[in-house]
Amino acid sequence: MSAYKDLLAFQRQTEALAQVSGRLGWDQETVMPRGAVEQRGEEMAAMEGVLHARRTDPRIAEWLAQADPVDEEAEAQLRLIRRSYERATKVPGRLAEEIARVTSVAQGTWADARAKDDVAAFLPTLSQVVRLRREEAAALAGGGDLYDALVNDYEPEATADTIGAIFDRMRPRLVALREAVMGAEHQPKALEGHFGAEAQMRLARDLAKTFGYDFTRGRLDLAVHPFSSGSGNDARITTRVVETDPFNCIYSTIHEVGHACYELGIDPDYLLTPLGGGVSMGVHESQSRIYENQLGRSRAFTGFLFNEMTERFGDLGLADADAFHGAVNRVSPGFIRTEADEVHYNLHIMMRFDLERDLIRGALDVEDLEEAWNARFLRDFGVAVDRPSHGLLQDVHWAVGLFGYFPTYALGNVYAGCLHQSLREAVPDLDGQLAQGQTAEALDWLRENLQRFGGLRGPRDTIRHACGFEPNEEPLLGYLEAKFRTIYKL
Amino acid sequence: MSAYKDLLAFQRQTEALAQVSGRLGWDQETVMPRGAVEQRGEEMAAMEGVLHARRTDPRIAEWLAQADPVDEEAEAQLRLIRRSYERATKVPGRLAEEIARVTSVAQGTWADARAKDDVAAFLPTLSQVVRLRREEAAALAGGGDLYDALVNDYEPEATADTIGAIFDRMRPRLVALREAVMGAEHQPKALEGHFGAEAQMRLARDLAKTFGYDFTRGRLDLAVHPFSSGSGNDARITTRVVETDPFNCIYSTIHEVGHACYELGIDPDYLLTPLGGGVSMGVHESQSRIYENQLGRSRAFTGFLFNEMTERFGDLGLADADAFHGAVNRVSPGFIRTEADEVHYNLHIMMRFDLERDLIRGALDVEDLEEAWNARFLRDFGVAVDRPSHGLLQDVHWAVGLFGYFPTYALGNVYAGCLHQSLREAVPDLDGQLAQGQTAEALDWLRENLQRFGGLRGPRDTIRHACGFEPNEEPLLGYLEAKFRTIYKL
Repeated sequence: MSAYKDLLAFQRQTEALAQVSGRLGWDQETVMPRGAVEQRGEEMAAMEGVLHARRTDPRIAEWLAQADPVDEEAEAQLRLIRRSYERATKVPGRLAEEIARVTSVAQGTWADARAKDDVAAFLPTLSQVVRLRREEAAALAGGGDLYDALVNDYEPEATADTIGAIFDRMRPRLVALREAVMGAEHQPKALEGHFGAEAQMRLARDLAKTFGYDFTRGRLDLAVHPFSSGSGNDARITTRVVETDPFNCIYSTIHEVGHACYELGIDPDYLLTPLGGGVSMGVHESQSRIYENQLGRSRAFTGFLFNEMTERFGDLGLADADAFHGAVNRVSPGFIRTEADEVHYNLHIMMRFDLERDLIRGALDVEDLEEAWNARFLRDFGVAVDRPSHGLLQDVHWAVGLFGYFPTYALGNVYAGCLHQSLREAVPDLDGQLAQGQTAEALDWLRENLQRFGGLRGPRDTIRHACGFEPNEEPLLGYLEAKFRTIYKL
Repeated sequence: MSAYKDLLAFQRQTEALAQVSGRLGWDQETVMPRGAVEQRGEEMAAMEGVLHARRTDPRIAEWLAQADPVDEEAEAQLRLIRRSYERATKVPGRLAEEIARVTSVAQGTWADARAKDDVAAFLPTLSQVVRLRREEAAALAGGGDLYDALVNDYEPEATADTIGAIFDRMRPRLVALREAVMGAEHQPKALEGHFGAEAQMRLARDLAKTFGYDFTRGRLDLAVHPFSSGSGNDARITTRVVETDPFNCIYSTIHEVGHACYELGIDPDYLLTPLGGGVSMGVHESQSRIYENQLGRSRAFTGFLFNEMTERFGDLGLADADAFHGAVNRVSPGFIRTEADEVHYNLHIMMRFDLERDLIRGALDVEDLEEAWNARFLRDFGVAVDRPSHGLLQDVHWAVGLFGYFPTYALGNVYAGCLHQSLREAVPDLDGQLAQGQTAEALDWLRENLQRFGGLRGPRDTIRHACGFEPNEEPLLGYLEAKFRTIYKL
């Protein structure tokens, strides 16, 4: 018993330090002065060094050998600690620190390159990041597939093959839906106009509350890229404002609220323990997606939102709540993943999945990435990329070394589809409630059946436990087809 | 050479981690959600644990024994590292932890007691803090004076005797000046009116730039207490706004800009090394004070400020720039140290110095502190303390264990007086420039002669090097007498 207690006490400090490190990331994206970027790189690297030393502390192996789990929770704690220990001991400290330092600076390089639409300014950095992450993947894979080793960081149990198989089943139906929708006679009108930044932020704050975000344990700020950060009692989110497109701010906010509410909804007993965070990126994304899409973009909730926005911004130039619902869910083959509609979104992911898998496996050179990106985009979306910031410079992920992360977004959609199906069975009056802006019963269901368990179960088990069936892509595809056939009157 | 290099590399990471820890403090005071306070306590404690382990790492002793300094800079680096190592290893880990834990709780106890004007609620905590710091002082002093051991933490080389001697020479002249000013026929009118928070913050930002603050390496936010935080390329400041008293915001800002510019002005080669921070609290305060007072409250600069404020806020109800200068520098025997004018400020410090020295030496019991405070205040300021929050509950310092810190504020004033005298000789046209809001030549002089050296020399050497003479109180007293005799037409 004492070994388990000692291990958990040690782990608790490590988790606290990891929170500190995460907060540095938040700081960098929201409030850090620009001139601090290089120094920050050293600070992050030093934190990474401390965390790595703790995560590889040989005492962990001793404690793990002696600890006797008395219940399911203790077993799960030990499983996650063992997993983290095994991962950490495989990667040399020097490499972990170099990755932290390089990616921290790379973020600024990427932002500058994107602002200037200058791919050439970014590629040397990207090459360096790819090289370091491949080196790390090789250390992790132990002879196995490099890309799988990285995917496993974000989505335990998943592999490129299992993900690829899901994507292969999804692609034809999404493409068919896309074709049907793009060719439909009825095309919803877009929302047009100018929506002041301050009014958008006020609305974003109100919507965050509508979706249960606890501002005493979080905060909402502006950042270039919306994200959520932190756990326990300090889970912060960011959003962005485009004055011609309020849906950007609104749905970015609701999306990040979903992530943050997951963290804030975890059993307080798990605070600063391995169980005290979301179980995987895919499951995390299931929460952000179901908040954003299945709830936030539903006909019922957009009816409520239509009234809210009309009250705040005056006439929206849309005939009625149905037209508004159409505007919210308008399908168009845009360049930008984060602005993509639900039909195109997974196609964006599938493309990145293929490209990054090839980069990590060494089948694609960084020098050839832009050409590969543009060719693929033209094929999948029927539009030629007009500038790099609309192409491979649009996402920060690769700059900061997040290879293997993109597919978890699509897995999150798949999981959200499953959860949505079960939620509708559990809350038959869901639409009636959403139409009034009432989310409490739906969010309680999610907290009760998924969020509060934190990392207790593996990703698929987590979804299975909440839904009562094996996670699969069918509910998502059925939902998308039904929804968009209605909107497009097919 | 290799031992020195290894030591510096190790130290660099420690400094980076200390920056991270400092940033957490900034976060807590400015942006942290209030529900995160307990979790933050654990995060801070974990960071302290990491820093303490590094500062007492036995390898430091080995490296120090082997390192051969090749030049003045290396010698100074080793001197500071040795100092820090000896200090850290003298204090038992258990005691350091207890002090951290007790003072972190004490801060809340003090805040509650102050809010309720309840001395009795604070004294048991204060007794505990005094006891722990005395224990720590005994560990540090090695048979020497307890109070000196604590002073030494903030102002190396200084002792109670040397400080006391300076204060003894200052007191009669300050008291005489105070009497003359308070009895003067001409009494400047105070600034009255309402000054919007946003306009004050805009002005504060502009004034920060006027005083050379580099917003690409810092930022200005609101906090309950103004402070500066961070070093290298990320030195942030906070200010506060009182809508009836814009001078509060203005001079808090300029004061903190002085601190931050010192950090930002240090030779970039010293970044994240022991030399990369200010040399002592007293020298640090000399920078904040000369920015705030000798420059910011000068007749020349207030002439510029008068025009700025009239432009922004309309008629200020003051006849002219002379009347405005009088309003800025109005002398009044208020209870609160942080709101004190230049004549009274050092009297506040002298009183705290005598009381805390007696507390630490065991010559004054915590139970008798309130009586001693009130008697002394009546004697020195001619006014009876009307409530504890205007008396011994006003400052956070003792609650968090900062004994030996107060006198560095007055030393800072003394040093600022010296620097100001030499600056005027070096820049004969200083007033002409300040009257135009031009500070560049003055600030360049400070950077060139003091700031850039960081911790290269000891405190007194730093001032001597910059001024060309032995630091002493005469320039400050001469400056104060001349200034206030003019304003009060004596």
